[in-house]
Amino acid sequence: MTPEAAMRLAVEHADRVKGTTYPNPPVGAVILDAEGEVAGVGATEPPGGPHAEVVALRRAGARAAGGTAVVTLEPCNHHGRTPPCVDALLTAGVSSVAYAVGDPNPVAAGGAGRLAAAGVDVATGVLADVVSGGPLREWLHKQRTGRPHVTWKFAASVDGRSAAADGTSQWITGEAARADVHRRRARADAIVVGTGTVFADDPTLTARRPDGSLADRQPLRVVVGQREISSEARVLNDDSRTMVIRTHDPHEVIRALTDRTDVLVEGGPTLAGAFVRAGVVDRILAYMAPILLGGPITAVDDVGVPTIAAARRWRFDGMDAIGSDLLVSLIPA
Amino acid sequence: MTPEAAMRLAVEHADRVKGTTYPNPPVGAVILDAEGEVAGVGATEPPGGPHAEVVALRRAGARAAGGTAVVTLEPCNHHGRTPPCVDALLTAGVSSVAYAVGDPNPVAAGGAGRLAAAGVDVATGVLADVVSGGPLREWLHKQRTGRPHVTWKFAASVDGRSAAADGTSQWITGEAARADVHRRRARADAIVVGTGTVFADDPTLTARRPDGSLADRQPLRVVVGQREISSEARVLNDDSRTMVIRTHDPHEVIRALTDRTDVLVEGGPTLAGAFVRAGVVDRILAYMAPILLGGPITAVDDVGVPTIAAARRWRFDGMDAIGSDLLVSLIPA
Repeated sequence: MTPEAAMRLAVEHADRVKGTTYPNPPVGAVILDAEGEVAGVGATEPPGGPHAEVVALRRAGARAAGGTAVVTLEPCNHHGRTPPCVDALLTAGVSSVAYAVGDPNPVAAGGAGRLAAAGVDVATGVLADVVSGGPLREWLHKQRTGRPHVTWKFAASVDGRSAAADGTSQWITGEAARADVHRRRARADAIVVGTGTVFADDPTLTARRPDGSLADRQPLRVVVGQREISSEARVLNDDSRTMVIRTHDPHEVIRALTDRTDVLVEGGPTLAGAFVRAGVVDRILAYMAPILLGGPITAVDDVGVPTIAAARRWRFDGMDAIGSDLLVSLIPA
Repeated sequence: MTPEAAMRLAVEHADRVKGTTYPNPPVGAVILDAEGEVAGVGATEPPGGPHAEVVALRRAGARAAGGTAVVTLEPCNHHGRTPPCVDALLTAGVSSVAYAVGDPNPVAAGGAGRLAAAGVDVATGVLADVVSGGPLREWLHKQRTGRPHVTWKFAASVDGRSAAADGTSQWITGEAARADVHRRRARADAIVVGTGTVFADDPTLTARRPDGSLADRQPLRVVVGQREISSEARVLNDDSRTMVIRTHDPHEVIRALTDRTDVLVEGGPTLAGAFVRAGVVDRILAYMAPILLGGPITAVDDVGVPTIAAARRWRFDGMDAIGSDLLVSLIPA
C-alpha cells in the first residue's frame, strides 16, 4: 500500500472517532510493515486513552519494526495524560513516518524534529488538504482561533425555501439526507437552535440512528433567544443535556461554548441570519432537495447584504448526491 | 476505438450543431474503419444539407467499407430533402452499425430493420441515456409531445436569491457561468422573459461570445406579459428578432412557439412561477453562486405549492462546477 492510500485509510478511521476525543484531536494512524502491508490501524481513543499511533502500533506488534507509520497529524512529543507518541514510534523501530499536518500546538509539536534526529525518515504534507479540510478541520480551527468551529446546516428546496407556504417542512429532504444529519449531530459537540425553532417545530434535537434509537453520543443542545420556552418542550427532555442562552448575540453564544470544538447551528432563518451577519460561520452545509416550494419561508432571512457588491464570497468545497438530494458545502473564500 | 468511445465522439459533434438543424435532429456520426480506427466524423448540417452519416461517410471515403458506423440516432430510411442515410451506409459497404436511440418518427424509422435485412450487424442502445438526455433531449421531447422542450434557467445565490435587497444582481455568478448561459442561448430556438425583466434590467437577450461580440446564431427573443414595453427597450434592437406575446398564460406562449424545439425561459420570479405552476417546465438549470444574499428577491415566487405534500418531485440529473459557481440540472422525477 502506498503512503497515500494508507493516509486515506487513516482519514477514514479518524473520521469515525470525530466528536469522541476532545480535547485531543481525532487522529488516524496506519502502520505499514517493511513490505508495505498494513500491519495495524488505529484512531485516537477517548481522553485518557491512547493516541492513534499507539493503538496502531499495538495492533502491528513486531511487524512495525522497519516499517512506516502513516499519521494524519504530526506525532506528539509531550507527556500529557499519555506518554509521547514519538517515544512509542522509536521504541517500535519504525524506519519512516509520514504525516499530513504539523501540530500547531507548541506544547505538543517538535515530534517530527525528534524523529528525524533519531534517524527516522520523515515526510510531511501527505494529503494535507484532505486532512485539514476533513477530520482535523474543527480541531485545527480551535487551535488557531481559540473559538469553536461553527457549521451552519440547513435543508431547503432548490429555490431556497425551508418550508412550504403553510409552514409544513416534513420532509423536504429524503431519508438518506436526514440520516446524514443525525450522523453529523452525533459527532458534533453542540447543536444550536433559536427559540423560534423550538416554538415552531418542538424538535428533540437528538442524534438518532436510522431505526429511531438514540445514538451513543449526544451533543449538547443549545437554545438561543429571549423568549421563554415551555418546560414541556422536547428539547428539554432527558435524551441529552440542554443549555438555554438568553441572548440574540451569536458572539455571546460562541463564548458560552468556548470549551467546545465542533458546533452545529441548525437554527431557522432568523438565527441563521444573525450568525451569518456576525461573521462567525466557518462552514455552510446545504442539503438541497429536488423540489420547488416558492412562498415566504426561506432558509435564511437578513444576512446583512443590502447590495450585491457587499456580499461575502464563499467557496464550494464539496458537493455530493445523498439519496435523491444534494449536499453542498461552502467555506469562506 | 470502441463503439462506446466512438459514440462519445459522436455526442460531442452532435452537441456542436445543436440549434442549427431544425427541423432535423442534431445527430453525430463516426465511421470506424475495419481496424477500428476513426475514418470520418460528421454532424447534421443545416436543413437541406446532408445528415450526419453522409458527412462522416464522405470523410471516411473508401475506408468505410467493412467498417462500423456509430450514430447517435437510428439512420433514417426515408426520402426527405436528402436521400435515406440507410442507402448511403449500404452503398459505402459498412459491415456494422451501432446507434444510441431509435427514431420515434414513423416516417423516418425502419432504418435498423433495413440494414439488418441487408446483412449489416446492427447494435442499438449504445449510450442511449447519454444521447437521449443530451443532444437529442429537446428533439425527442418535441417528437413525443408535439411541444417544444422548455428549460427554465435561473441564477441565484445558494440561498435562492436572484438579486440583493436593493435589486442589484450584476453579477451573482462568475464569468464562466455567464459564458455558459450565452453558449446555451446560441443553441436555443427562443429565449422567453416577462415584461417585468424588461422593465427591471432592460436586457438585450442576445447570445454573445466572451469578447462581447454577437454569436453567429441568435435565438428568437420572446417578451411575455400584458404591460406595454418601450420601443426603446434593448430587447427590440436589431441584434435578433423579437416576438411580443400579450398574455400571462404559459400555455399560450408554448402554442405561439409550437414550431420551435428548444425554448429557454429566463424570466424573473413571476414568469418562472407561472411556467412552473402550468407544469410546462421540462428541465431546470440552476446556476448557484457561492454567496448568501438574503432579502425579499427570490428566483421564483409562487409555484403553486401551499403545503409540502403538494410539492412536485424533480430529480437532479447533473451537477457541475463552472468556475466558482455550481450548475445544477433537474428534470421531472
